Amino acid sequence: MSKRPKFTLKAKNGNARLGEIKTSRGIIRTPAFMPVGTAGSVKAMLPDWVEASGADIILGNTYHLMLRPGAERIAQLGGLHTFMNWPGPILTDSGGFQVFSLSKLRTIAEQGVTFQSHIDGKTLELTPERAIDIQVKLEADIQMVLDECTPFPCEKDAARSSMELSMRWAERSKQAFEDHAAPDQALFGIVQGSVYPDLREESAAALCDLGFDGYAIGGLGVGEGQELMLDMLGVTAPFLPEERPRYLMGVGTPLDILASVERGVDMFDCVMPTRSGRHGQAFTWNGKLNLKNAIHADDPQPLDETSSCPAARDYERAYLHHLFKAGELLGPMLLSWANIHFYQELMGATRQAIAKGRFADFASETRHRLAGSSETTN
Amino acid sequence: MSKRPKFTLKAKNGNARLGEIKTSRGIIRTPAFMPVGTAGSVKAMLPDWVEASGADIILGNTYHLMLRPGAERIAQLGGLHTFMNWPGPILTDSGGFQVFSLSKLRTIAEQGVTFQSHIDGKTLELTPERAIDIQVKLEADIQMVLDECTPFPCEKDAARSSMELSMRWAERSKQAFEDHAAPDQALFGIVQGSVYPDLREESAAALCDLGFDGYAIGGLGVGEGQELMLDMLGVTAPFLPEERPRYLMGVGTPLDILASVERGVDMFDCVMPTRSGRHGQAFTWNGKLNLKNAIHADDPQPLDETSSCPAARDYERAYLHHLFKAGELLGPMLLSWANIHFYQELMGATRQAIAKGRFADFASETRHRLAGSSETTN
Repeated sequence: MSKRPKFTLKAKNGNARLGEIKTSRGIIRTPAFMPVGTAGSVKAMLPDWVEASGADIILGNTYHLMLRPGAERIAQLGGLHTFMNWPGPILTDSGGFQVFSLSKLRTIAEQGVTFQSHIDGKTLELTPERAIDIQVKLEADIQMVLDECTPFPCEKDAARSSMELSMRWAERSKQAFEDHAAPDQALFGIVQGSVYPDLREESAAALCDLGFDGYAIGGLGVGEGQELMLDMLGVTAPFLPEERPRYLMGVGTPLDILASVERGVDMFDCVMPTRSGRHGQAFTWNGKLNLKNAIHADDPQPLDETSSCPAARDYERAYLHHLFKAGELLGPMLLSWANIHFYQELMGATRQAIAKGRFADFASETRHRLAGSSETTN
Repeated sequence: MSKRPKFTLKAKNGNARLGEIKTSRGIIRTPAFMPVGTAGSVKAMLPDWVEASGADIILGNTYHLMLRPGAERIAQLGGLHTFMNWPGPILTDSGGFQVFSLSKLRTIAEQGVTFQSHIDGKTLELTPERAIDIQVKLEADIQMVLDECTPFPCEKDAARSSMELSMRWAERSKQAFEDHAAPDQALFGIVQGSVYPDLREESAAALCDLGFDGYAIGGLGVGEGQELMLDMLGVTAPFLPEERPRYLMGVGTPLDILASVERGVDMFDCVMPTRSGRHGQAFTWNGKLNLKNAIHADDPQPLDETSSCPAARDYERAYLHHLFKAGELLGPMLLSWANIHFYQELMGATRQAIAKGRFADFASETRHRLAGSSETTN
């Protein structure tokens, strides 16, 4: 029997899909939200909290980890799971997105991208082969092909050349993966093509011809707005095989996730719950709260007394407010925890709704709840 | 039966004492180390971790809490225990030390001290009566009299006037406490007198005449050096009643604690384990480690694989090193936790050694162990 991660589609409800990916390190229930462990840590959280929140898989960033502490070092220390004390599945990105968003002096060529580290200014190269080499050394359960992240907005000609380069890189990534990956690792391709439906279709077709364990939809959530993002999902998803998981990279808000599940997406990652948490924003079933707001200074209520998350259940809002005012680290710790827990509750409820064949109602009810008492828009 | 916290001396070994303080919120085993929860949070730690480390009591700072979020607000929110989600005993200082070390434009008069908040520059007054009022509102189980913290060095005349003022404030503090405190709260006096044995004796005698639930030794650990500090303990302790707990405020290193227990001290508090932890320093049974040091970058060992503390047992030193290099909050979280746990292990082993009548041997062995492989002096 193959040890290769395997997706099973268990139910459909409209286009919303319920499934699971079996990996050698555990089962990933989909739709899944992957907390982001950028530099080997889901920021301000213990791995135990991440697991207890219901997360089956986390994401690691190849770009950050290759710069510090280095893929070869992590390999010597027993791989990323051992290093960060997270025994469950890990998906790593290819590093491409961060090269384009964080590094300086990038030069893109057919061979790959040359860039300067944002940490120490060193010149480094990332090629499709090196991106796979790093991810194999990290022992990532799910790996991503290197792609060029098309900026938004982008003229169609430029979007086409960029997408075509990404497709050639995808082929090289696949070859490198087949040559070097362990039998229990998987590789996902990434659909590009900016906001042009025909380019998206072409890209999806090219990837399907190559054949991947899963398909990501890249280059969205980069400023095009929710409507255009959902349009692109709508035109891309039909060209992706039913029997493979679909991953919308870097997205998003609870409402983005609901709308994307509705269009057939199975996997998500986003820094929003942890980043917002570090800045005093809490996600709850009644909408977002800004705990720095003076309105909370005398409020003895917890974020959510019915939550199974200690951070949401056991601390007064007034106390959370105080922690942020006083600059206490416990504030970011508790809100990151509560937010990741909320995101996992949302995914759990989403899966349950699909299983019961009532996803549309659930999505509609949830939209109303989340809009309810929000202090800020979701 | 009185609900007032009560100290029981259970064993003596030389001058080292084993005891316990029964309070309405739990038993404090002595010698005890109290983690410091300055502004309502033991920095970067969950209350659960503090409790699981073996801490029976924590300390809160009146100065910080009166400025933010305010004693009246905390009272309305259910008291400090509820506010910070710590159900066990809390000792609060009187605010005096921080007024003298943190605030600006202090004016000391017979009535009390006027100062400017280091947060917003507001002018505030702290009197013996107000210090008790705040501590009662916080619902502190053990409260401290307001004292003037004599600087070091200090001429004898100045030390005498300062000590005498503190004794008059102690009397007023006691009166205020008797008028306003709850029946399950206790009040400790504070011996002053700088480094002058006769002043220390006079101060101790004055406090004993007034009668307190416990006696702190103040004004030490402020730059006089360990030798002079221990001399002062040696000359002060004999004037304190056997049947009351003795608390050395703001001290100190593991070696300071061992030497002070040897001289009859029962209680300690210090920011060192948490502050050091936030800066990458770990306390272990083999001495201190600076995790920022490059020597740890490839070390797969945990801090202490035999520890019951997850932070000390479950993470590679290389990972801790990485967390500090990358500025990840998990670094301060894990090292604060490991350090508080180590301090509590030290206190537990100390209590056990006294119970077995082998404290001197234990102290000597521990001094050698701690000096063993230290990267820095303890």
